[in-house]
Amino acid sequence: MRHATLWLAPLTALAIGLAQPALAAPTTSAGPVLFDPAGLKAMAADAARYPLFAEEVARTRKMVDAAIKAGIDVPVPKDPGGGFTHEQHKRNYMALYGAGMLYRITGDVKYAHFARDMLLQYAKLYPTLGPHPAANREEAAGRLFWQSLNDSVWLVYGIQGYDAIRDTLSPQDRKNIDDNVFRRMATFLSTGRPEVFNLIHNHATWACAGVGMTGYVLHDQNFVDMALKGTDKSGKSGFLRQIDLLFSPDGYYTEGPYYERYAIQPFLVFARAIDENDPGRHIFQYRDGVLLKAIRTTIQLTYDGYFFPLNDALLDKSLRTAELYQAVATGYAETHDPALLSIAKWQGRTALTPDGLEVARDLAAGKAKPFPYASALFRDGPEGKQGGIAVMRSDAGDTGEVLVAKNTAMGMGHGHFDKLSWILYDDGHPIVTDYGAARFLNVESKEGGRYLEENETWAKQTVAHNTLVVNETSDFDADWHAGQKVAPTQIYFSGDRPTKVSTAEMAGAWPGVTFRRTLVQLPVAGNARPLIVDLLRVHGDKPATYDLPLHYSGHIVDLGFKLQSHVTNRPVLGKANGYQHIWVDGTAPLDAGNARMTWLTDGRFYTYRMLPPAGAEVILGQIGANDANFNLRREPLLIERVTGAKDATFVAVLEPHGAYDPSAETVVGDKSNLAAIRHVRTADADLVTIDFVSGGSVTLAIADSADADAGHHASLDGRALDWTGHFARFDTGVTP
Amino acid sequence: MRHATLWLAPLTALAIGLAQPALAAPTTSAGPVLFDPAGLKAMAADAARYPLFAEEVARTRKMVDAAIKAGIDVPVPKDPGGGFTHEQHKRNYMALYGAGMLYRITGDVKYAHFARDMLLQYAKLYPTLGPHPAANREEAAGRLFWQSLNDSVWLVYGIQGYDAIRDTLSPQDRKNIDDNVFRRMATFLSTGRPEVFNLIHNHATWACAGVGMTGYVLHDQNFVDMALKGTDKSGKSGFLRQIDLLFSPDGYYTEGPYYERYAIQPFLVFARAIDENDPGRHIFQYRDGVLLKAIRTTIQLTYDGYFFPLNDALLDKSLRTAELYQAVATGYAETHDPALLSIAKWQGRTALTPDGLEVARDLAAGKAKPFPYASALFRDGPEGKQGGIAVMRSDAGDTGEVLVAKNTAMGMGHGHFDKLSWILYDDGHPIVTDYGAARFLNVESKEGGRYLEENETWAKQTVAHNTLVVNETSDFDADWHAGQKVAPTQIYFSGDRPTKVSTAEMAGAWPGVTFRRTLVQLPVAGNARPLIVDLLRVHGDKPATYDLPLHYSGHIVDLGFKLQSHVTNRPVLGKANGYQHIWVDGTAPLDAGNARMTWLTDGRFYTYRMLPPAGAEVILGQIGANDANFNLRREPLLIERVTGAKDATFVAVLEPHGAYDPSAETVVGDKSNLAAIRHVRTADADLVTIDFVSGGSVTLAIADSADADAGHHASLDGRALDWTGHFARFDTGVTP
Repeated sequence: MRHATLWLAPLTALAIGLAQPALAAPTTSAGPVLFDPAGLKAMAADAARYPLFAEEVARTRKMVDAAIKAGIDVPVPKDPGGGFTHEQHKRNYMALYGAGMLYRITGDVKYAHFARDMLLQYAKLYPTLGPHPAANREEAAGRLFWQSLNDSVWLVYGIQGYDAIRDTLSPQDRKNIDDNVFRRMATFLSTGRPEVFNLIHNHATWACAGVGMTGYVLHDQNFVDMALKGTDKSGKSGFLRQIDLLFSPDGYYTEGPYYERYAIQPFLVFARAIDENDPGRHIFQYRDGVLLKAIRTTIQLTYDGYFFPLNDALLDKSLRTAELYQAVATGYAETHDPALLSIAKWQGRTALTPDGLEVARDLAAGKAKPFPYASALFRDGPEGKQGGIAVMRSDAGDTGEVLVAKNTAMGMGHGHFDKLSWILYDDGHPIVTDYGAARFLNVESKEGGRYLEENETWAKQTVAHNTLVVNETSDFDADWHAGQKVAPTQIYFSGDRPTKVSTAEMAGAWPGVTFRRTLVQLPVAGNARPLIVDLLRVHGDKPATYDLPLHYSGHIVDLGFKLQSHVTNRPVLGKANGYQHIWVDGTAPLDAGNARMTWLTDGRFYTYRMLPPAGAEVILGQIGANDANFNLRREPLLIERVTGAKDATFVAVLEPHGAYDPSAETVVGDKSNLAAIRHVRTADADLVTIDFVSGGSVTLAIADSADADAGHHASLDGRALDWTGHFARFDTGVTP
Repeated sequence: MRHATLWLAPLTALAIGLAQPALAAPTTSAGPVLFDPAGLKAMAADAARYPLFAEEVARTRKMVDAAIKAGIDVPVPKDPGGGFTHEQHKRNYMALYGAGMLYRITGDVKYAHFARDMLLQYAKLYPTLGPHPAANREEAAGRLFWQSLNDSVWLVYGIQGYDAIRDTLSPQDRKNIDDNVFRRMATFLSTGRPEVFNLIHNHATWACAGVGMTGYVLHDQNFVDMALKGTDKSGKSGFLRQIDLLFSPDGYYTEGPYYERYAIQPFLVFARAIDENDPGRHIFQYRDGVLLKAIRTTIQLTYDGYFFPLNDALLDKSLRTAELYQAVATGYAETHDPALLSIAKWQGRTALTPDGLEVARDLAAGKAKPFPYASALFRDGPEGKQGGIAVMRSDAGDTGEVLVAKNTAMGMGHGHFDKLSWILYDDGHPIVTDYGAARFLNVESKEGGRYLEENETWAKQTVAHNTLVVNETSDFDADWHAGQKVAPTQIYFSGDRPTKVSTAEMAGAWPGVTFRRTLVQLPVAGNARPLIVDLLRVHGDKPATYDLPLHYSGHIVDLGFKLQSHVTNRPVLGKANGYQHIWVDGTAPLDAGNARMTWLTDGRFYTYRMLPPAGAEVILGQIGANDANFNLRREPLLIERVTGAKDATFVAVLEPHGAYDPSAETVVGDKSNLAAIRHVRTADADLVTIDFVSGGSVTLAIADSADADAGHHASLDGRALDWTGHFARFDTGVTP
């Protein structure tokens, strides 16, 4: 009843046409505060001048005009993700944001009126709302949406739309909307949900961004201070602390690429607002400019525009996403880095802001430069000491061969139990894959669009990744809170020479188990693409079963081993920890002579050749067992298995070779050019030798020590090998 | 030994440098005969002028220059498809053809010399060859290749290259190559392989084209006559008879789209040569211009540039293929149809001939018009009376919704047992699929690149298609010779109104069984894409099990029925006829209320809703059982099954709906808008009614008779329905 009274008051005032001067704070302006007047003026003046921006205006006009035509619909919240009320409130904040920006651009008051009228309806509805009826136990309930995260997103968009039209309102309407929509919402999302707001987590970033911007727009410093420093304003939480703890010094965001993409919008949008209203904070220079680094790092963690699907991630998520249009525009306005223009060009979109206008203007002026995709280590952890992602690229383009070693820390609740896993891309395709998340975003029939149960039972589990599994259990027993406490150590990385190397070590993922993995991207004369060399050494304190899965994308064309196949009755590999989801196609004992499999992916052959530990077997399988609801994609995998060993060394080479051209009907190089892999353990190093069918060999010497100055000596095939530092490569008679 | 003597003679003559005037026929020119001098002159003059042609010259130069640099290699034949000698002889004919054309274009004698020197090596090798060592029993052995078909292709390319440089040769070289390469090859492929040459089959077309063009180049009328009318010159076989029997009046080629693509090259190339040398034959006007129709029909039978994968077909085969570059160029030179230019543009390629120059010239001049993809019936059979392919398109583009009803005759040995099957495309994707062929073309480890055993055990079988299966056996008991004798009847087709309809009937595919199928592409107000309505009525003379499989591409998001799942031990559906390759995921009893499945393909939802016959059940499964060699793709299928019925009517609607946008993270319309399907059988017709959730209904009235003037009457829901002709549609209160 208190709420009802509140929203009736202004309406009554409006009805009787009385001015209520007390409603408008006399010392503050009602005008836009999130962008400077000059920028807004330029945006309005040149909106039609540059194609990318003009298209954005046209697109937004179409969307908002349709919303105006359809009539305002602010339904009582009811449905979960994907349901009507969920989608309608999403449409509303987009329309509100769009209407505000269009009003600034076109000056057409119909947009301001539409935004006002919609917000007046929210001013009626919002005060009446309690917790959302479709809320669940895992996520904090919102009011408009099933989880408060979506309410925060509403606020981030809504406050920007509101800022753009607030100066057009009557004082009564302004106070009504200030009080009954934005102040209430910001209050709910801060002091009303401190358990979210004070997290060091992207959900809190969205909340802080919404609340903080509301503070600027409503000239309410309390909201700004809480947003920056937490509800207690101690600085132990809040936006600044989030920047401190959620990013590494390299701009890597702890939850991984997919969530970095998601989190970057509130970080950048709020930073932009801070920069506008509190320029003395130099927020873009904060922590050595980490927010601007984060934009570039987010882009680096993509292939052909799609995010590396590490941790909880949807495979179809690319740089073409609202968060990144904003981030790229803001980043460009701050840095004028021409490489960001080529990203905007690929996106084909930009933000409907003064920053977006700059992007469109400079793109039209031909200032774009190719984005320099790099072989680099992106360290994880606030101090960069919790492992990292090692990206090794065959070239500076985004469709070459890219090897990604995932040596990061847990990454909180969306992290996967995938310590020291890897993936590989080539020729525009995933080759060695990561399942990503088990989720159909916003598809209501799939658990309301939320993460599926199979995200826990399969996608997060270690066996769903390309890394060591001990005794059919996952890292940290699949407890992310435990995983949060220990991170891998990145022993070595080299990305600036043709041969690229990453070595990392993990201890504590299983009690008593330590493993170390070196992944090498190895160009060899005569091979169109570099080979991938994988050396994984595990030490355990008691005998165990070690599995090394390989998830590949392609069609098997040749097997070196003779498979004992289950062709008429397909068993399941295990009972739990993801193994319950694996159908077994067949198994075979492995030896050094037979341990290879060749598959075809689009136009190229890939041979995975193992040097198996003694007694190893191979299991070929497919995902999809115990999946009555068809929640999983039916993808193939290979598992190399050793049982009863304390120590084991897995060596493998993945060799891209040949070409299959369906247009020309030609095939070349469908046979592997590897004759053998050999491995020798010396006193302080591993030697991996690859012998080629066409003659010659390459030996990789990998020392235990990462000391760049330490000398090492070994002898192989009667030849002395001497090198300094962690890694060396010795070529013998390799001919193109 | 006879061969050895023969090839020694010219060498000896060469060695002693004697002129041998008797070798050159005094009354014939050595100059090019396959293209007219004016065309060749224009091609040389303007080669660099038009981008498409200039790129073709550059590409060919690169290929031929590399071949020249690598040195001539004419190996003794040894390997099967994909192996070195196979690929080298393929490379040789391409290089030979390219060198000839480049010589004509550039005048650079190095190309003529290269072609000459390579042919002189063939002149040494060829006479020594017997049957190819890798030949198998199924295909006629070649000499250079494992099957004589490839030898024919060699000759088709080789003779064109030779024609272009023949006037540069010394009389001795010319006679040597004439006699020891081309005359021998043409002799071998005609009188030496009459069992192929006299077939009415694409293998014979390639042979006739090679032999006939050799006849023109060598001025040997005997070869020309045999090529046109068979080895006995009776006209019962040979090229003209092939045109008569292999094409329907609509230009449909009996083996289907994939083989039409393949066969069209020798048809067009030889026709072009005939037109040049025997213009009085008016070969392009022959049979009402069927060869030119065939070009357009080949293009019509594609989606997004890829051939409908009916019969034996590889999914990755598109219009970007050498055969079609030639065909489009020749077709354009004959017709100047600007729609063919847009195809050349999509191909990005053209022929290196005077015809290709015309294409490049007119494309550069901006004369291209969009190719008018049509809703049309392409009749099968020499007289158009053996069924056909009914293509129903939502629009004239090539990425809309396309429904294809495959009501053709057998199509010889590459035909599938798929009577009255259908496929569907939408938004650039296959939605309801055809497996195509089980083959990895030229991939040696997959049975030498030949058709796999699974092509017989799976891909050709009826259950691998979207059509009726009786008692788990295939049409004609999977005997194509039997299938060749009976064809479906296309009862009705209407493609020129918004609602598109195909009705066909098949009798004799199983003893005592007749079935009739109507497929309708049904636009409905408010639905972005037309619905597909499927009515299949079967009558058998004894109780049987009727299966109706649906092969779909997408991920299941919702099931109307409660599946009894085999989630921990996956059984195989059957023992033979393709059923041995189906894993069973689960089964469920069906009723009118629950019989629906929704899947997601890229950005759209598809709901398949059945009106099941009494007692029907559904089986969900996946391909891949009894496939120890991983020869099959692991794709999903649904089977609707009725047991113990003589007569059954299957009614189903496939409804594309909604949108999933991963960039914008929005989902709309993920729920079906169908409330129910109803079916009523009247005295002489079927009524199928679709009731919509949003209100209203559409009733399709499908009369047994195809008589366009026959009147029909029925009553439904107390309302009288009267219509004339086979098909009518009654909308009631359907609102957008």
